[in-house]
Amino acid sequence: MSERSPNSEDLDLTDPAGYPHWTVITIRCRDEDQLGHVNNSVYSEWFEVARVTLTREVSAAGPDWLVTALARMTINFLGETTWPGEVRVGGRLLGVGNRSFRSAYAVFRDERCLATADCVSVWFDQRSRSSATPPPQVREAMEAELRRTASGARPAR
Amino acid sequence: MSERSPNSEDLDLTDPAGYPHWTVITIRCRDEDQLGHVNNSVYSEWFEVARVTLTREVSAAGPDWLVTALARMTINFLGETTWPGEVRVGGRLLGVGNRSFRSAYAVFRDERCLATADCVSVWFDQRSRSSATPPPQVREAMEAELRRTASGARPAR
Amino acid sequence: MSERSPNSEDLDLTDPAGYPHWTVITIRCRDEDQLGHVNNSVYSEWFEVARVTLTREVSAAGPDWLVTALARMTINFLGETTWPGEVRVGGRLLGVGNRSFRSAYAVFRDERCLATADCVSVWFDQRSRSSATPPPQVREAMEAELRRTASGARPAR
Amino acid sequence: MSERSPNSEDLDLTDPAGYPHWTVITIRCRDEDQLGHVNNSVYSEWFEVARVTLTREVSAAGPDWLVTALARMTINFLGETTWPGEVRVGGRLLGVGNRSFRSAYAVFRDERCLATADCVSVWFDQRSRSSATPPPQVREAMEAELRRTASGARPAR
Repeated sequence: MSERSPNSEDLDLTDPAGYPHWTVITIRCRDEDQLGHVNNSVYSEWFEVARVTLTREVSAAGPDWLVTALARMTINFLGETTWPGEVRVGGRLLGVGNRSFRSAYAVFRDERCLATADCVSVWFDQRSRSSATPPPQVREAMEAELRRTASGARPAR
Repeated sequence: MSERSPNSEDLDLTDPAGYPHWTVITIRCRDEDQLGHVNNSVYSEWFEVARVTLTREVSAAGPDWLVTALARMTINFLGETTWPGEVRVGGRLLGVGNRSFRSAYAVFRDERCLATADCVSVWFDQRSRSSATPPPQVREAMEAELRRTASGARPAR
Repeated sequence: MSERSPNSEDLDLTDPAGYPHWTVITIRCRDEDQLGHVNNSVYSEWFEVARVTLTREVSAAGPDWLVTALARMTINFLGETTWPGEVRVGGRLLGVGNRSFRSAYAVFRDERCLATADCVSVWFDQRSRSSATPPPQVREAMEAELRRTASGARPAR
Repeated sequence: MSERSPNSEDLDLTDPAGYPHWTVITIRCRDEDQLGHVNNSVYSEWFEVARVTLTREVSAAGPDWLVTALARMTINFLGETTWPGEVRVGGRLLGVGNRSFRSAYAVFRDERCLATADCVSVWFDQRSRSSATPPPQVREAMEAELRRTASGARPAR
């Protein structure tokens, strides 16, 4: 990761003000498990919607074979929720490297933060099925996004 | 976490020799996504099978209302895989606290480690829907498991 | 089924005018499969949201142990769709029996019908895990719904 | 469908002797829902594993762009099941048409039939995203399968 990558331990990932990108997701009956609440693996599906959306919004168009793959994800589960209803997932870019980038997400039901995620994604060449360096315009678009949104980051309390 | 809790950074979570508990899972067609490989959220479902199995195997029977909830999970994605076939998921207890415990898992396809997970689970009272202290026999059973399996932990290379 | 139950072969299940109950569902990235379109099993999850919603809306409150289980479902897949976006699912009651009821659903993306479902659900006693006769007020509420919505049924063209 | 297509109403789809193709699937914790049993939509995922396996086993290799899409599926839910454990899914070809084929499946836990499925699949051209006629060797392989397995069909009792 570049030196532009802040340490997420220094950020309050539960603060909605830190997220410039938002996605609304309706909860499904099937999201609940035996305990009568939304299962932990469903949060991964919700974060994926926000992550793919963010990636499209902050990176310039690259070649067809260029995709991203998740390399590392830490989820903190802070509260439970149930069907029916909807959640909002906020997303922000945290850092950009040569072949990877770091981003953070948080799921909110009304004002309550249910979970946060800190993710490292790698650029991936679908033809060779190995990591790849994206073209310069992709990296430049992400660097611009980082400069634009850096002020939204609040230190953790 | 108690002082018996090792730091997972010091452990090689990709080493199958470190896992005393094993679960076999058949891959499903539906596990694959648009990229033609198993989706990242499916690993959470696989780790859940191993985690619930481990919890049953290493803790004594508690009251009906006592369940566990996932509080934090870090997954490292190391390789991709596809349907059809099966994976084996290893599990081990890493540490025991008053109201929580820490455990680690790894998914293997043949000898190849596809992903590791480092999890913190909390004991949960299903009646009050809040965290709970389990009865002494549950904690004692987990402490005994830790003593039994400590020698299986190999330092990371 | 009672004689009030029309034959769904005589109904055009793709006509949105026939559905008095509606649910909006956001499509998720994970809903897509290897073929790059929403997987067939996801339609079952969408229909479940609409079916549980319909059941709540058309039946009076019964005892805690009274739930419903799906006994039979026929899905006709008419068109494919992709993430991102949202779908609307229409639902209608088709017939009421002593221990079961019949209902129909259709998924629409904008004006296009993607799939229809014809379902038989049975009332189920969660304590004995066997089928059950619901209390009279549940059946009466459903009979009233049938009378109210019968005029919405259009014959198939 | 061709005249070789039997009427599934005349077949006992719950009889394991009728199925020449078998797939074993391990049940997952996440397969269960709020009612503490495997959710109905999971059966669609299980049937998909068996259907794609059957299609590969009974049809000759076609061009890369030739895939199948599900056009219609009727599931009869006969019994519930729970995690942990495994199920076996039997599959058989029922009929072959110009651009479609019909197949049936049943899920068994030990000797107990949990659900049956009667499916119509269509051949699909992934380039044009429309239905397609498969090359002659694909149809011939399926016709041969039908002749081989016709004797396995037992009339419904």
